[in-house]
Amino acid sequence: MEWPISASINKGLEGAIACESKVGYVDGVNGHLVYRGYDCFQLSDFSTFEETSYLLLYGKLPNNQELNDFKAKLISYRELPYEVFDALRLTTNINTHPMISLYMAVGMLGAIDEKTEDISVANQEEIAIKLIAQISSLVAVIARIRAGKKPVKPDSSLSHAANFLYMMTGKKPDAVTEKIMDIALILHADHGMNASTFTGMVANSTLTDMYSSIVAAITSLKGSLHGGANEKVLYDLEEIGGPENAEEWFKKVRETKRKVMGFGHRVYKAYDPRARVFGPLVRFMVEKRPEIKPLVDTATKLDSIIVRELAKEKKIFPNVDFYSGLIYKAMGIETAMFTPIFAASRISGWTARILEYLPKNRLFRPRAVYTGDIKLEYIPLDKRV
Amino acid sequence: MEWPISASINKGLEGAIACESKVGYVDGVNGHLVYRGYDCFQLSDFSTFEETSYLLLYGKLPNNQELNDFKAKLISYRELPYEVFDALRLTTNINTHPMISLYMAVGMLGAIDEKTEDISVANQEEIAIKLIAQISSLVAVIARIRAGKKPVKPDSSLSHAANFLYMMTGKKPDAVTEKIMDIALILHADHGMNASTFTGMVANSTLTDMYSSIVAAITSLKGSLHGGANEKVLYDLEEIGGPENAEEWFKKVRETKRKVMGFGHRVYKAYDPRARVFGPLVRFMVEKRPEIKPLVDTATKLDSIIVRELAKEKKIFPNVDFYSGLIYKAMGIETAMFTPIFAASRISGWTARILEYLPKNRLFRPRAVYTGDIKLEYIPLDKRV
Repeated sequence: MEWPISASINKGLEGAIACESKVGYVDGVNGHLVYRGYDCFQLSDFSTFEETSYLLLYGKLPNNQELNDFKAKLISYRELPYEVFDALRLTTNINTHPMISLYMAVGMLGAIDEKTEDISVANQEEIAIKLIAQISSLVAVIARIRAGKKPVKPDSSLSHAANFLYMMTGKKPDAVTEKIMDIALILHADHGMNASTFTGMVANSTLTDMYSSIVAAITSLKGSLHGGANEKVLYDLEEIGGPENAEEWFKKVRETKRKVMGFGHRVYKAYDPRARVFGPLVRFMVEKRPEIKPLVDTATKLDSIIVRELAKEKKIFPNVDFYSGLIYKAMGIETAMFTPIFAASRISGWTARILEYLPKNRLFRPRAVYTGDIKLEYIPLDKRV
Repeated sequence: MEWPISASINKGLEGAIACESKVGYVDGVNGHLVYRGYDCFQLSDFSTFEETSYLLLYGKLPNNQELNDFKAKLISYRELPYEVFDALRLTTNINTHPMISLYMAVGMLGAIDEKTEDISVANQEEIAIKLIAQISSLVAVIARIRAGKKPVKPDSSLSHAANFLYMMTGKKPDAVTEKIMDIALILHADHGMNASTFTGMVANSTLTDMYSSIVAAITSLKGSLHGGANEKVLYDLEEIGGPENAEEWFKKVRETKRKVMGFGHRVYKAYDPRARVFGPLVRFMVEKRPEIKPLVDTATKLDSIIVRELAKEKKIFPNVDFYSGLIYKAMGIETAMFTPIFAASRISGWTARILEYLPKNRLFRPRAVYTGDIKLEYIPLDKRV
């Protein structure tokens, strides 16, 4: 019952255990991120988004045959049904947040799929693979429509990362840019029981359908305390305007207690391993994209200030969002698209964890402690003051 | 950190405390449902959906002036923007679950509202009131399109319940039918920390926007373990085919351990107070709608079997979903629309709890206990078997 009871509340369900999982974990103390037992540094060095998605879904690295079959399936799903273009045309314009366009498009995929209501694990798994392929296509189409450009048809000769960049920019990327996008997709694919994963899992625990659960996850990733942070960081870096202003900006931010995105994390009490990869990558990208140098120098300076001021005592470090946006910026991608790109990667973790929970499903239903009035007597309208 | 730890897991976060709330509570042991201190029986007897929504949002019963202002606002919002009809035409057909149509339409409202991204409490509250008015209009339009009929324009002279029925059926309801719909709306408006409310709150805790959080809540209410149950109950009653078959059907269901909707509830260990109101109401409605008598007799018989077999030892009783569908059936409403009608009511509880949490917001981020492998060494593709 939810009668007033005395219980200690850990706000935001901090420390509450939602479930067991073999998908992955975050070692926040030592700064490690692990997928299915593999350290994310190994995966970003050697793996691909396709292979990492397989690993997350099936719990093991695929052999050659398995990987080829999985890649072929992803490629076969890249093309979008025409109805989705109707939904995107309705909801994609420069004034609408592209995360709204994205979940409208995923909802449309569910609306037209005849097997949406088949919630067997086998069918949900098939939809998961479809969504891993199609969310990248959707994000690319949204980017094109926002830019007033024609959507680009997928190219089946390209890897997932290369095709994603090609569909977004209209240009086939060079090998280095492809690898960097692949690393970004790999490193964003899963991250413990984060809020969007959890939102999707709570929705799915009612035995709703996979499309709807992913819609729920996207609504949640949109928030500025979650995926939306990578977008906000860029606006902050632009506001600072150069490394020479970083010290003063940071001082002011601390004095006014303004909420700033891109550093600090509920789980990490060490340098975010993903930021550890992205920071050097961003600095490397400056060579080819000198126009982003001021932003990168600002970020580098701010990073050192944060580490100097907050790391030791407060265990606050730059996190993944601090650098990921600069990667996409260097690729020429519009800032508003950063969070949708995050979704194009996190779909693998969302579906892996939803599918893992489904066979032993139990409805998520925590409690609230009631602190309001009790046993009030209803007063007729004409007697109220 | 999410390293393997030993911790007891209460599956589905049972017993975990998500937050404090003054909105309402469920006294599952004694079978009472309370909104803002008032017993739901008092509210279903004396209140209206408009007044109850005000109560849930603002924490007190409105005086005459406050109620009139609130009603006027709801009426002013009943009309839908034309863009939403485009979204509904795209996604509403007999093969698409109307809950998908519903969240697509709510997403469309967010896509076109210039103030969607203004997440100040004042603006979110205004959007809440708008959604309390408009979700009913959306549900009615979806019902009309599904039936191949023209949408009906709202009538500002009617109460919320009467207008809802009018827009759905095209006929102004008599006073008794209006009152019964009003009771149904009142009794579904809030129910502790249920899964859809929780889904919406988790999404909103990322500081996403109100429309997106309500989209998330709708995806979750759709599930058959939650709002979707009222629809399933009707299919079961139709399958049974008459009170004379109820005993045998129930026996078979128990033997085959088939999951059946409409009885048992995580929180209630007594007769669901809402079912206590709806049961007699349904039997009363048979007088005017003799065609539903076989279904109602079947339900009444099955109710007595459930109470006889499961109540004493297992504390399992018929719940709200067991009877609510029959109410709507008696009103001539299509079975697939039952869960959307639930949403048209629960929007008040969703928004009240989201708005309550927002000023003291903290991101919901529970943990998973990692039970998978650790420190695996990456094996190159050509070395895998």
